[in-house]
Amino acid sequence: MTGESQAGETAVRPTRAPWRASVLTLYPDMFPGPMGASLAGDALSRGLWSLEARNIRDHGLGRHKAVDDTPFGGGPGMVLRADVLAAAIDAAAPADDPRPRLLMSPRGRPLTQKRVHALVDGPGVIMVCGRFEGVDERVIAGRDLEEVSIGDYILSGGEMAALTILDACVRLIPGVMGAFTSAGEESFESGLLEYPHYTRPRVWEAQEVPEVLMSGDHGRIERWRRQQALAITRARRPDLLPQDD
Amino acid sequence: MTGESQAGETAVRPTRAPWRASVLTLYPDMFPGPMGASLAGDALSRGLWSLEARNIRDHGLGRHKAVDDTPFGGGPGMVLRADVLAAAIDAAAPADDPRPRLLMSPRGRPLTQKRVHALVDGPGVIMVCGRFEGVDERVIAGRDLEEVSIGDYILSGGEMAALTILDACVRLIPGVMGAFTSAGEESFESGLLEYPHYTRPRVWEAQEVPEVLMSGDHGRIERWRRQQALAITRARRPDLLPQDD
Repeated sequence: MTGESQAGETAVRPTRAPWRASVLTLYPDMFPGPMGASLAGDALSRGLWSLEARNIRDHGLGRHKAVDDTPFGGGPGMVLRADVLAAAIDAAAPADDPRPRLLMSPRGRPLTQKRVHALVDGPGVIMVCGRFEGVDERVIAGRDLEEVSIGDYILSGGEMAALTILDACVRLIPGVMGAFTSAGEESFESGLLEYPHYTRPRVWEAQEVPEVLMSGDHGRIERWRRQQALAITRARRPDLLPQDD
Repeated sequence: MTGESQAGETAVRPTRAPWRASVLTLYPDMFPGPMGASLAGDALSRGLWSLEARNIRDHGLGRHKAVDDTPFGGGPGMVLRADVLAAAIDAAAPADDPRPRLLMSPRGRPLTQKRVHALVDGPGVIMVCGRFEGVDERVIAGRDLEEVSIGDYILSGGEMAALTILDACVRLIPGVMGAFTSAGEESFESGLLEYPHYTRPRVWEAQEVPEVLMSGDHGRIERWRRQQALAITRARRPDLLPQDD
């Protein structure tokens, strides 16, 4: 792709290369799935990001394209083979592909909004979705995979985690959200949970909108919202407050 | 539905009423999405659980079926109206519907595997997906919504969070997973992150499977795995260890 635009070219070019996501999965049909709808889907059609879902089974072994085997040492479930997964990764990304390689895993580092920003600022992601009991441990170091967790619960596989990470990232790609400014004021961006929102009607089921919000006094509104955000964070998630607060 | 089975009936009835999920969303087409594939999708076809996606916009106001409005007090984004959302909730669930009403929200209580188990043990869930800046605060108390968060990051809406919670729950419904026993030994079920897994080949890219796993000594293997799980948890997520450990 050339950096020059040609006279006579009518399509608007994105100001930077599209953000590229490659997903390795045993269920490629799950993608783009919900990421093909709404603003993310529009942005996908407009070329602001790209998504490639690759079937790990294409690299399976033998007539049955086997991808897993029983765990050494015994125990329930099946383990994704290191050789099969490595072949799938190598086919998806050359060794010098600069994109981080994320392995969806409940053992991983918990995803944070800060990490989401870092991912969006980069060229894209390679996401590996495990199924079965897990993946052979050796492929993690062998292919430089970074284990990432979206939360402290167990999923049936990495696919929903990959979709969740995509959703968190894609909304931050410049041009994806209509009112981009609204991305700035939300939970975690300020380090606090969000203050309460109110809209019409002014009275609903005998509950009124707080008077301060009708005051037109922007300084007072700002202080009230900050106060509310602090109080909600203190009550629900004191772990998010700075330790020296 | 009657609790009696009739002679001559050939279909196998589930031993309990199916687990029922109702999702309120502005994007009903996102459902079942990835939950229609794989084991969860099979279980959906087999009637082990049910999913109903209801469009909040059906309760929108006026010719344009408006569902949102600008926030009182100013600021970016749009807020889902309390009256519209309440009407959608009331249509989806009578006041005596015993299912918990979850509002997908980054301000909510973080989802845990323990909460997932509690949800699966109940009759099902009602899940409300916000979009825009948020929902009018008054509907949360007004309709007894419980705010739930799947992690400390921002999504474009509640849909991916709802799908994630469904995935976590549905895999635990009896009969959904082929090898149900494998659900017991995973991360968080023991309070620890999972130990490493290995499968064939025994040597891969000069990395060997740990000798202990080939020993056939089940006691030793058990101890090694427990040790590994503890070490990984201590290194990555000391917050998960019991405080008096």
